[in-house]
Amino acid sequence: MNTVEKWGLFEVSLKGPSAGNPFTEQSVSATFRSKNEIVTVDGFYDGDGVYKVRFMPSFTGDYVYETVGSFPEAESAGDFTVTEPTGNNHGPVRIANTYHFAYEDTTPYYSVGTTCYAWAHQPEEVHKQTLEELDKGYFNKMRFCVFPKHYIHNFRDPETFPYEGTPVDNSNLTEENFSYSVDFSGNNWDFTRFNPEHFRRMERCIVELQERGIEADIIVMHPYDRWGFSVMNREQDDLYWNYVIARFSAYRNVWWSLANEYDLMRAKKLEDWEHYADLLCKKDPYNHMRSIHNCIPFYDHTRPWITHCSLQRQDLYRHVEYTTDYRTRYQKPIVWDEIAYEGNIDMGWGNISGQELTRRFWEASMRGGYAGHGETFMNPEDILWWSHGGKLHGESPARIRFLHEILTQTPGLGLKQGTGAFDETVAVPDEMIPVTGYEIHYYGFGRPSFRNFVKPAGENWRVEIIDTWNMTITDVGVHSGKFRIALPGHEYMAVRLTRV
Amino acid sequence: MNTVEKWGLFEVSLKGPSAGNPFTEQSVSATFRSKNEIVTVDGFYDGDGVYKVRFMPSFTGDYVYETVGSFPEAESAGDFTVTEPTGNNHGPVRIANTYHFAYEDTTPYYSVGTTCYAWAHQPEEVHKQTLEELDKGYFNKMRFCVFPKHYIHNFRDPETFPYEGTPVDNSNLTEENFSYSVDFSGNNWDFTRFNPEHFRRMERCIVELQERGIEADIIVMHPYDRWGFSVMNREQDDLYWNYVIARFSAYRNVWWSLANEYDLMRAKKLEDWEHYADLLCKKDPYNHMRSIHNCIPFYDHTRPWITHCSLQRQDLYRHVEYTTDYRTRYQKPIVWDEIAYEGNIDMGWGNISGQELTRRFWEASMRGGYAGHGETFMNPEDILWWSHGGKLHGESPARIRFLHEILTQTPGLGLKQGTGAFDETVAVPDEMIPVTGYEIHYYGFGRPSFRNFVKPAGENWRVEIIDTWNMTITDVGVHSGKFRIALPGHEYMAVRLTRV
Repeated sequence: MNTVEKWGLFEVSLKGPSAGNPFTEQSVSATFRSKNEIVTVDGFYDGDGVYKVRFMPSFTGDYVYETVGSFPEAESAGDFTVTEPTGNNHGPVRIANTYHFAYEDTTPYYSVGTTCYAWAHQPEEVHKQTLEELDKGYFNKMRFCVFPKHYIHNFRDPETFPYEGTPVDNSNLTEENFSYSVDFSGNNWDFTRFNPEHFRRMERCIVELQERGIEADIIVMHPYDRWGFSVMNREQDDLYWNYVIARFSAYRNVWWSLANEYDLMRAKKLEDWEHYADLLCKKDPYNHMRSIHNCIPFYDHTRPWITHCSLQRQDLYRHVEYTTDYRTRYQKPIVWDEIAYEGNIDMGWGNISGQELTRRFWEASMRGGYAGHGETFMNPEDILWWSHGGKLHGESPARIRFLHEILTQTPGLGLKQGTGAFDETVAVPDEMIPVTGYEIHYYGFGRPSFRNFVKPAGENWRVEIIDTWNMTITDVGVHSGKFRIALPGHEYMAVRLTRV
Repeated sequence: MNTVEKWGLFEVSLKGPSAGNPFTEQSVSATFRSKNEIVTVDGFYDGDGVYKVRFMPSFTGDYVYETVGSFPEAESAGDFTVTEPTGNNHGPVRIANTYHFAYEDTTPYYSVGTTCYAWAHQPEEVHKQTLEELDKGYFNKMRFCVFPKHYIHNFRDPETFPYEGTPVDNSNLTEENFSYSVDFSGNNWDFTRFNPEHFRRMERCIVELQERGIEADIIVMHPYDRWGFSVMNREQDDLYWNYVIARFSAYRNVWWSLANEYDLMRAKKLEDWEHYADLLCKKDPYNHMRSIHNCIPFYDHTRPWITHCSLQRQDLYRHVEYTTDYRTRYQKPIVWDEIAYEGNIDMGWGNISGQELTRRFWEASMRGGYAGHGETFMNPEDILWWSHGGKLHGESPARIRFLHEILTQTPGLGLKQGTGAFDETVAVPDEMIPVTGYEIHYYGFGRPSFRNFVKPAGENWRVEIIDTWNMTITDVGVHSGKFRIALPGHEYMAVRLTRV
């Protein structure tokens, strides 16, 4: 008998017609039933006369299914058994306690993300290097695009295209003549015929991330385009969205980012985004995380379909320090997916130091928000992590992993900003019934030689000095009453107090 | 015949009664006349039966004067000749072009300040060290207090007190028992009898600064007090203000700061500050610079008596970056007198790096504002520049002097923020009739490896790379059209473009 893990992917494969245009002329769907759920999902055409329907079971036990469709062979039925999850399978990530995340099995998920927009479209060697870096456990979420990316440092054609057809000639593209206004006329695509190989590449990436405990934050649309994928009409967009949803939804680690920098997509209006969101809400039976990422104006993250705020910093100088304000405003998790990248390219969104990026991670995290990494070092082969993946060259990833270790030690699902002095960010557990006895005092760019603490009489507190840059935790003993903790007088220090 | 330089200090000394209380029972004033001005000023009692009247002439040529007063010897007359100013005597600083400063002789004054609150009250050895540091030309304005300072690191009694009497015992003061709420009852002062020696110490400081081309930004009141000087009644305050004005006004380098952190002086209300301002406007015939410095809420700097905004940063993260906003709001020069100090004390207002303080100076200055330095390194003898003066230990002073050299090369009276990309601060000359052909592009914490520039056809621009931290200016030649300037990919760089 067939078995699949709970939150695993169960796939039904059907032979069917390959004549005509199966993408538009044929359809297939399936209903999956068990004691606890009945789920109907659309299938998709995967080329070569093969149709597939995918399903992610949310319960253990026996399931039956029936498939139906527009062609005779689409009618089928079967059953399978869903077993307990194993390994790092904790299920999809869900919202927890308003501002935080937990996997469906209740394991807390403290998000530390990265971005490799176009890593799914790179040659094998770069792809392998990316995986080697991801193996180091720096990150547990990655943002990346379905569509290829057209931008400076991104003039090579992708390994595959999402549609049948031929791309515009890229041989004369240079950074000099790069423009945000593109003439799409050199392209010749059939927007009604997908290239399944392109989507299988995406799925390989999703699975590779899943194996490494990394959420796949899939950017479905984006503005950096020379092929016309950003200016398709409503019918073409719907075909695309339905195809993406049918293919990717059953992967438990999928998050939906409707767009990167939605506000730069001139051809799309508010009603378009709300329409795609509506499609997602109707067609994704698992309610994966949903958000939409800004360049400058935030989308209205109060909208009910948005599960969390995927933010790019708006101001050059103050951004993650608004985390508490935005928590209050949006009543959702605050995920700073773009807060400038470690690197040295010409542009200010990609040339901050590892120290500064790490500081931003801490300032966000200590306020009960979450942050995202990216890396943009000039590279002789023009391979920049932010877009291609490849090798990491910066200093922040190891510090981000260290921060994540600290976050996993949080009592409860996440942190929030507690009461503190004007010159520190104090993190305390973010629980409805206040959890006392755990505090992290973070000093950022301050360089105190010591700090004084006052605790109620009769309490004993273990004190640890955390050097967030040198990645050390030094136990300096148990203290009570009023006490002074000596610090090294350099930047990026924190003090953790735990009542014992 | 007596002579004095224009903007020099002419003093008339008179013998008079020492019996009773000359400070309250006697008065003296003088009227100074020349072809161009008639000025009447109050004199003051300087102890030992000596009364003085001081005057700063604003014109060259012949002057006559008459003194009058409450005692027979107060009646006198005389004349003197005012000669051209010499050396670094450029006259008092005036507002220039709304947002900037120039000396009265029209020499531009680009303010780079520092703070040594209590340097006037220190022993000779520390005083000498302070002067040795000031000789290095790092700063051209210093903020300091008339009253002594009571605060952590400041428990020693001052060398002199402003009044006759005896101070509260300080032998049991510790950082542990320091409190912002003070019991003043251990003091025994006669608030009607000044100690002239205390004020002569102040005047020595004013002159020492003047000799070094440094403006004396005198803080007349402040909240850090264990002696009761901050809670005198209106009559006592008026006596004090009149005495201060009579003694100090004739020094050309005097600026008036009504208070440091006025909002922490619980005994004073808005009507008090407006009353002191009114006194100043009436009694200081020279209209020295006038402002009032906040801890948290800004004073309403739109008030007409305020010549410039003396600001302390309100937010920990974004502050000098609001310079352009505040210029617009207040239509006056923006002087960031407190933006955290270089150091390593426990508190966040005194433990930023030299790099960060220098960055703040640049961000303020490139927007057409001005910034102030301070230094608070832990010191075994508890001598911290911010309060005592003494020796400087930080890295920012040399960089501030370097910035000042750059500022003196400005075509015109000052800079303003010009049009630039989101990730740079562009400074251009701030002139009514736009002056083109001079731009400084500052990148702050950004680390670009290069920047592209585009200039109109037919123009040639000299390009200099300014390393604001390593204090180098590298000429990289004349460029035109679209050109790329290679940069070292580290922080704190600027590019200066000058049309040739």
